[in-house]
Amino acid sequence: MTKDEVQGATEEEQAQSKKGLKKQQKEAEKAAKKAEKQAKLAADQQGSEEEDFAKDRYGVPLMVLPTKTGLVDQLIWLRARVHTSRAKGKQCFLVLRQQQFNVQALVAVGDRASKQMVKFAANITKESIVDVEASVRKVEQKIESCTQQDVELHIERIFVISQSEARLPLQLEDAVRPDGEGEEEGRATVNQDTKLDNRVIDLRTTTSQAIFRLQSGVCKLFRDTLTNKGFVEIQTPKIISAASEGGANVFTVSYFKTSAYLAQSPQLYKQMCICADFDKVFCVGPVFRAEDSNTHRHLTEFVGLDIEMAFSYHYHEVIDSITDTMVQIFKGLRDNFQTEILTVNKQYPSEPFKFLEPTLRLEYTEALAMLHQAGVEMGDEEDLSTPNEKLLGRLVKEKYDTDFYVLDKYPLAVRPFYTMPDPNNAKYSNSYDMFMRGEEILSGAQRVHDAQLLTERAMHHQIDLEKIKSYIDSFRYGAPPHGGGGIGLERVCMLYLGLHNIRQTSMFPRDPKRLTP
Amino acid sequence: MTKDEVQGATEEEQAQSKKGLKKQQKEAEKAAKKAEKQAKLAADQQGSEEEDFAKDRYGVPLMVLPTKTGLVDQLIWLRARVHTSRAKGKQCFLVLRQQQFNVQALVAVGDRASKQMVKFAANITKESIVDVEASVRKVEQKIESCTQQDVELHIERIFVISQSEARLPLQLEDAVRPDGEGEEEGRATVNQDTKLDNRVIDLRTTTSQAIFRLQSGVCKLFRDTLTNKGFVEIQTPKIISAASEGGANVFTVSYFKTSAYLAQSPQLYKQMCICADFDKVFCVGPVFRAEDSNTHRHLTEFVGLDIEMAFSYHYHEVIDSITDTMVQIFKGLRDNFQTEILTVNKQYPSEPFKFLEPTLRLEYTEALAMLHQAGVEMGDEEDLSTPNEKLLGRLVKEKYDTDFYVLDKYPLAVRPFYTMPDPNNAKYSNSYDMFMRGEEILSGAQRVHDAQLLTERAMHHQIDLEKIKSYIDSFRYGAPPHGGGGIGLERVCMLYLGLHNIRQTSMFPRDPKRLTP
Repeated sequence: MTKDEVQGATEEEQAQSKKGLKKQQKEAEKAAKKAEKQAKLAADQQGSEEEDFAKDRYGVPLMVLPTKTGLVDQLIWLRARVHTSRAKGKQCFLVLRQQQFNVQALVAVGDRASKQMVKFAANITKESIVDVEASVRKVEQKIESCTQQDVELHIERIFVISQSEARLPLQLEDAVRPDGEGEEEGRATVNQDTKLDNRVIDLRTTTSQAIFRLQSGVCKLFRDTLTNKGFVEIQTPKIISAASEGGANVFTVSYFKTSAYLAQSPQLYKQMCICADFDKVFCVGPVFRAEDSNTHRHLTEFVGLDIEMAFSYHYHEVIDSITDTMVQIFKGLRDNFQTEILTVNKQYPSEPFKFLEPTLRLEYTEALAMLHQAGVEMGDEEDLSTPNEKLLGRLVKEKYDTDFYVLDKYPLAVRPFYTMPDPNNAKYSNSYDMFMRGEEILSGAQRVHDAQLLTERAMHHQIDLEKIKSYIDSFRYGAPPHGGGGIGLERVCMLYLGLHNIRQTSMFPRDPKRLTP
Repeated sequence: MTKDEVQGATEEEQAQSKKGLKKQQKEAEKAAKKAEKQAKLAADQQGSEEEDFAKDRYGVPLMVLPTKTGLVDQLIWLRARVHTSRAKGKQCFLVLRQQQFNVQALVAVGDRASKQMVKFAANITKESIVDVEASVRKVEQKIESCTQQDVELHIERIFVISQSEARLPLQLEDAVRPDGEGEEEGRATVNQDTKLDNRVIDLRTTTSQAIFRLQSGVCKLFRDTLTNKGFVEIQTPKIISAASEGGANVFTVSYFKTSAYLAQSPQLYKQMCICADFDKVFCVGPVFRAEDSNTHRHLTEFVGLDIEMAFSYHYHEVIDSITDTMVQIFKGLRDNFQTEILTVNKQYPSEPFKFLEPTLRLEYTEALAMLHQAGVEMGDEEDLSTPNEKLLGRLVKEKYDTDFYVLDKYPLAVRPFYTMPDPNNAKYSNSYDMFMRGEEILSGAQRVHDAQLLTERAMHHQIDLEKIKSYIDSFRYGAPPHGGGGIGLERVCMLYLGLHNIRQTSMFPRDPKRLTP
């Protein structure tokens, strides 16, 4: 947040109409009542001060945070959420949680805790954040319900750092329950919209924590692999003028006195960087598609992992760079994210992701032959339908035992105008898709780098040359042969983990019907 | 580029009206004429085939690229641009360029090159891309005009991989000339708009190559440092609904049947991740500001390097994390990007960037005292103007010899409503800005993490509570104390290198008047 935004906020505040003030007054009254209630509650909890010897051992600080006493070595000091809480006579059992991990804790009336302090602890709402000072004790019997099974914490001081509202819009244990499990006992699961509507809570579940930590890993593996290969990271603009890209499926932006568009892909900019001698580039950033597609695998905004590179002799150098990058990602996930993968599998069981080294590369004609053999009727220059892609994925898995492969040499007719034709067979092209578990995660090609051939191809596709003038002009001052592709981050995570909805791998998904939170 | 976009393009092509066809026909005729001319030129260049013994040693391949003969060990095979070319009797001297590096090359009539081949080489336009096979020879006298001064290449084969148009919109050597240099000799410099209008060529200059390779380094250093500190990378949405953020300086997007906005900062989402137990997060992505500011340091779209973290005891933990990250960036640049820094300095001289370890942290009152002493009149709770920020930067540099420092504890009155007040002095706040060479690069703060206090602060600022409801609600289910800040990537690069216009450090800058390329 820069200074400018601060000023922006101030202007906004000034522009604030007075019509909202009445509502605000109401809110204020509500807030005041609540504060009063809380004060009463705190007084109740604490009882009269004289009789509580432990009054400094608990409380609700706000601005100045408590610190470890530091005097007793055996005591630990930690911050955690109250995952569950259960009062039992003179004791209160808490399960304290930090991300995916939790531990049992205990406040018991004795020389370190008063009756009032136990009552205070028992009243702490689930999901509240507490600081506790405690001793760590071995337990005789394993605590099966916690990740830390061999110990429990005996609490000597406890402070509520942030109190949660008592009524949660969803329960974390319901949100991680596998579909169908516990149905007989009438246990609930949480539907996806409720999860997404309350994403701040849903993201605390072990499943969400695992998914997004793994996603962070995918980005890092992608970038590190490419950086090691000599790629340069670039930043491409998301607001683009009308001229440079097509008009379909594009979001329009009001731009001062004119209109602009949100970039559907960084392709033109990646290619310009190649024409500007950056040789090999990648970028990671949002990509926008104004498609009214309400499917399990479409988002209107997703994260593109984009690659573009000049090659020396043959566009298969590009395929090799991309597939090797994917293999490095798969290996990195397998080797460093087993905990996360197992955590997700608990809720969403799936087969481990399989891949070959080197990556399997099939030609389009080979794939067609496999499909024909399986009884599919389709023409040589026809594109693959989604069901046929999935079927092909299964056939390839059976035959080659891999969940990842490249389909090379698509018919020229089904690819965009900027795709380089196959010099040996004009029916085909130097283009490829890549698939994970039978679903497409990348589409790419050698691009036409010659302005004249590009003009001819565009005319063949009946594209208005005026609209793509700046694109074509980029290649007029010397452009090396090059190719690339764009990968959808959310799809890679979804398919790697064997999930079935892309909204599970987008932190704050956007689709035609969802713009919040 | 995914399959969907491919389909998008096809639809667009189909939607193409016929009104453009006439224009296309014209273009086609033009293209055909050009092709004919080129063919003639090629024929002229090659002469009649019978008499040219070297006809296989040069040419203009398009789809199938030539390869190294591989027979002669002493020969190298390389791809480069023709930087300059000069024919001289039976010889043609070329300067070949790869990014920042160049070397002299020679084609001379002899047993490896015919007269026709030398003529062919002499006709290759500047900025064309060639593949050459050549022997490397030591030279007696250093070639001062090239980066490779001790050798030259004797070309035995040469192929034009991509021919540049003869007339360039700008000359690379003009684009890197320091302002004022060579004025007497009537040498040109290139103004910024011309550079930006022809960015594909301008990005080939040594200065641009250095700037954007260094920028790539800044991103890597930022992420690597934070990853080592246990931060998780997150991806936040750029299309947001009306409710979550303010209305000033926001771009509007048409979103199917409704309207949406482009995110001014990822702040809400970063904070939601903290409320969702991600503990420490960062993100790198575009940030949009619909401000009609036409200054040297404002863009309408820039890259935000954003940080947010929970802290244990005091918000200075956040400041320490951010300043240490900046210091790691400065050190990484100093240690690994000296070539790039020196290259940029050749065209834009500046003092080396100085920083202290640990970073200097001044309180707002101390800064005011320094300004008062320097004769500036301003009130205790007044914000710093841009000229005063710059003056302060100079005073700090004089006194502490650093180009980077933190200004802490801003007056509460000049900060946004979500800023945590100073618990010890209600006039001030737990907020900070960071400065490089006297210009702000980051604004940040401890955020109010308590829904009730946040409501009070918003009401104090007369903000419509309805509009920020989802923001406030994020803190109702337990939120740890946290803080963060956002850094502008382009500003960091500009100020580190001592440049004076942010358009130099944005590859494809966007401002109120520029949307292309």
